[in-house]
Amino acid sequence: MIMTRVKVSFAPSIRRLPSYLIIIRQALQNGESYISGTVIAQELNLEPIQVRKDLAITGIIGKPKKGYPVAALVAAIEHFLGWDKVHKAVVVGAGNLGFALAGYREFKLHGLEVIATFDIDRDKLGAIVHGVPVLPLEDLSAFVRDNGVEVAILTVPGPVAQDAADRLVEGDIKAIWNFTDHKLDTPSGVVVHREDLSSGYALLSVMIRNQRGREA
Amino acid sequence: MIMTRVKVSFAPSIRRLPSYLIIIRQALQNGESYISGTVIAQELNLEPIQVRKDLAITGIIGKPKKGYPVAALVAAIEHFLGWDKVHKAVVVGAGNLGFALAGYREFKLHGLEVIATFDIDRDKLGAIVHGVPVLPLEDLSAFVRDNGVEVAILTVPGPVAQDAADRLVEGDIKAIWNFTDHKLDTPSGVVVHREDLSSGYALLSVMIRNQRGREA
Repeated sequence: MIMTRVKVSFAPSIRRLPSYLIIIRQALQNGESYISGTVIAQELNLEPIQVRKDLAITGIIGKPKKGYPVAALVAAIEHFLGWDKVHKAVVVGAGNLGFALAGYREFKLHGLEVIATFDIDRDKLGAIVHGVPVLPLEDLSAFVRDNGVEVAILTVPGPVAQDAADRLVEGDIKAIWNFTDHKLDTPSGVVVHREDLSSGYALLSVMIRNQRGREA
Repeated sequence: MIMTRVKVSFAPSIRRLPSYLIIIRQALQNGESYISGTVIAQELNLEPIQVRKDLAITGIIGKPKKGYPVAALVAAIEHFLGWDKVHKAVVVGAGNLGFALAGYREFKLHGLEVIATFDIDRDKLGAIVHGVPVLPLEDLSAFVRDNGVEVAILTVPGPVAQDAADRLVEGDIKAIWNFTDHKLDTPSGVVVHREDLSSGYALLSVMIRNQRGREA
């Protein structure tokens, strides 16, 4: 499968995969062999046809009446997302959001291993938060290169975001998950995904306006 | 327009509206009268047809060659999202994520006004963080009711999420933005949107696997 435009074509399906994974892993723990798309759909308040379409992007097709083989489905989703491998990560910006993300337990389940946090604030340096040290920004490039860090979670203030990105690029970072409001200028080989917390609020806002109740 | 399934049908378009709004507000500040869908598309690395479709849900159609009237477009998006009115909010859970969201500057631009944070931790009570007081969880229901709070941002640990939601419902909350991993049981009149930070990581992961570079 060639994906030229993840964002437009498959993005909504990909976004839903983690919530499917939680339910299917639970079924696996309960010792179930098969899970039906209808059960998953009910759990998440989605249409069954939507669930089947979403899961099809991982290459797995359910069997009529039986549903999906649970263990194979977990493996297929994890493999599709690359979550069956460990990706080393750093958090750049040791503020509230940075610490929250460094300590986000679910990421570990997904193979995302945060091994350091970076900041310019001398008062924070040397601290250990969520088992992870706070290191000086000057060391960022060398640290990324020396430790084979693939993913950077960027939570610095907007005005210094580009400087931090430049340091990451210098260290040969593979991907930047950009939580700032700054549009980064990076070489084309670097994957950049901007996370906009306002996106979720936009969805909630429309739901409030439409008073349509629960969504998922 | 009747929206029966925000999530499946319009959700991706709604998610993109905040990023459009930033660009269009900038054009307004620069004194521009019209902005073309192509310019917006270039800025966000989207297809122009996608931008036109997304903006059409707000009821505004661009003019050939001229594009969209900037001031009217800002007003239309803000009205569509209900961001032209102030919504009072509380953050429940005074941890790193709670403080990060309480201090998120962009929310203020969108009419979301966080007026208090709640926690059970006696050591945190009485503190003022980002100009907002940390109050005891016991007071949550009464506070929500007495102050006409519409939105609750829920960042407590999963095991206590339902208890917090019950208190919010008791206070007649309108909407819960659920950042926990717990599926809430609430009356049908309460809008619930679960925010899953793993969704963004899923997108980033697929981009890494496909090495397709920048997205937005």
